[in-house]
Order: sequence, then C-alpha cells, then structure tokens
Amino acid sequence: MKVQFYTDTPAEPAEVPGVGIRWVVGKKDGAPNFAMRVIEVQPGSNTPYHTHDFEHEVYVLEGTGVIRSPQGDQPVEPGTVVYVAPNEEHGFFNQGDGVLRFICVVPHVG
Amino acid sequence: MKVQFYTDTPAEPAEVPGVGIRWVVGKKDGAPNFAMRVIEVQPGSNTPYHTHDFEHEVYVLEGTGVIRSPQGDQPVEPGTVVYVAPNEEHGFFNQGDGVLRFICVVPHVG
Repeated sequence: MKVQFYTDTPAEPAEVPGVGIRWVVGKKDGAPNFAMRVIEVQPGSNTPYHTHDFEHEVYVLEGTGVIRSPQGDQPVEPGTVVYVAPNEEHGFFNQGDGVLRFICVVPHVG
Repeated sequence: MKVQFYTDTPAEPAEVPGVGIRWVVGKKDGAPNFAMRVIEVQPGSNTPYHTHDFEHEVYVLEGTGVIRSPQGDQPVEPGTVVYVAPNEEHGFFNQGDGVLRFICVVPHVG
C-alpha cells in the first residue's frame, strides 16, 4: 500500500507549455492495469487537442475551463466527470484565472 | 464522450450501512478496462475491512479519516492518494464530522 499527498509526486512537464503531469499511481508502484495522473494546466494553457487509441477517465478537482471535442466546447468545473473514449479527439482548455487541475486515469500503454 | 457532474450518477448503497457508491464511469459508458467510482462514507461509518484480488487507485476529495491496513491506520485528507495492491487488506474509516468522499478506480471484474 502506498499513501501519499498528491504533491509528493513531482509534476513532470508535458509536451506542451503550461501543462504538468503528476503520475501519482503507476507502473512504478506495481499497479497492474492503469495509471492515475494529476494534470495541472496553467491559466491560458491547454492540453493538446489530439486523439489516441486509449481512453481517459477524468475528474476535475479545481479550476474552470472547457473540454473541446468534435461535439464542441463543454464547460468543466470541480466535480465534472469526463469519459473520453478511445480515438475521440479532445483537449482541456483552462479559461479561468487559476490552475485547472484534474485526475486523468489511463490504461498502461507502450 | 460523456461530460457530467458527479452527482448526475446516483449513489447506490454499498454492502454496509453509511456508504454509497456512484459509478461515474464504467462498462455502461463503454469504458473498456476500468471503472471510476465516487465513494461516500458518512460520519462514523467505514467501508468493509476486506481484501480482494484486484487493485484500488484512490484520490481523497473531501473529509478526513484513516485507511486501515496491516501497516496500521494512516490518515487521509483531501489530496491524499492511496494505492491498494491486489490482496492487500484495507478499509476506509470516516473519523470526521462530514462526509468522507473519494475517487476509487477499479479494473472491470466479474
């Protein structure tokens, strides 16, 4: 068992500016199937608008913004849950004054 | 893509009093690998102290209490991350005045 505060896992820079990823539970802990990340998007920044062949299960912790998809922009706030299916285009855009922080769980890939 | 507030998914009673489970993302949404639940433990209540052959990946959203394991009781608060490995004994005990609310992700089983 591992019990930690989420900030005990350092934020790694993502492939775009203004986005950090904390891999709070993952392969390094022996997790057999999926990884929990805490993603932090700075004001005015966004995660890449992209697609991939695996899913996301997301819970928004802090901040406000939108999730962009072919369905348009949908607002997110603390308590919003998002399921992104494999191969769905998506990106998270911070449109607030503070950090946009969310949990994003992914299967082990690669 | 599904975008919802977590309370849009009703809480189902768990096998013990004082505990509710919201299956916010799961098989019903087409999720291929794992399910995200929001678990709510009322003051003075706890999840069963038990074990099973699959893992938990947990993020505490609200409230205070402990996670009990063979390692003893460890405090949890908002922002605490817990990884429970397969076959580890565990239970979440609400020791605060308000609800203890946490995300708990599990692989599809059964």
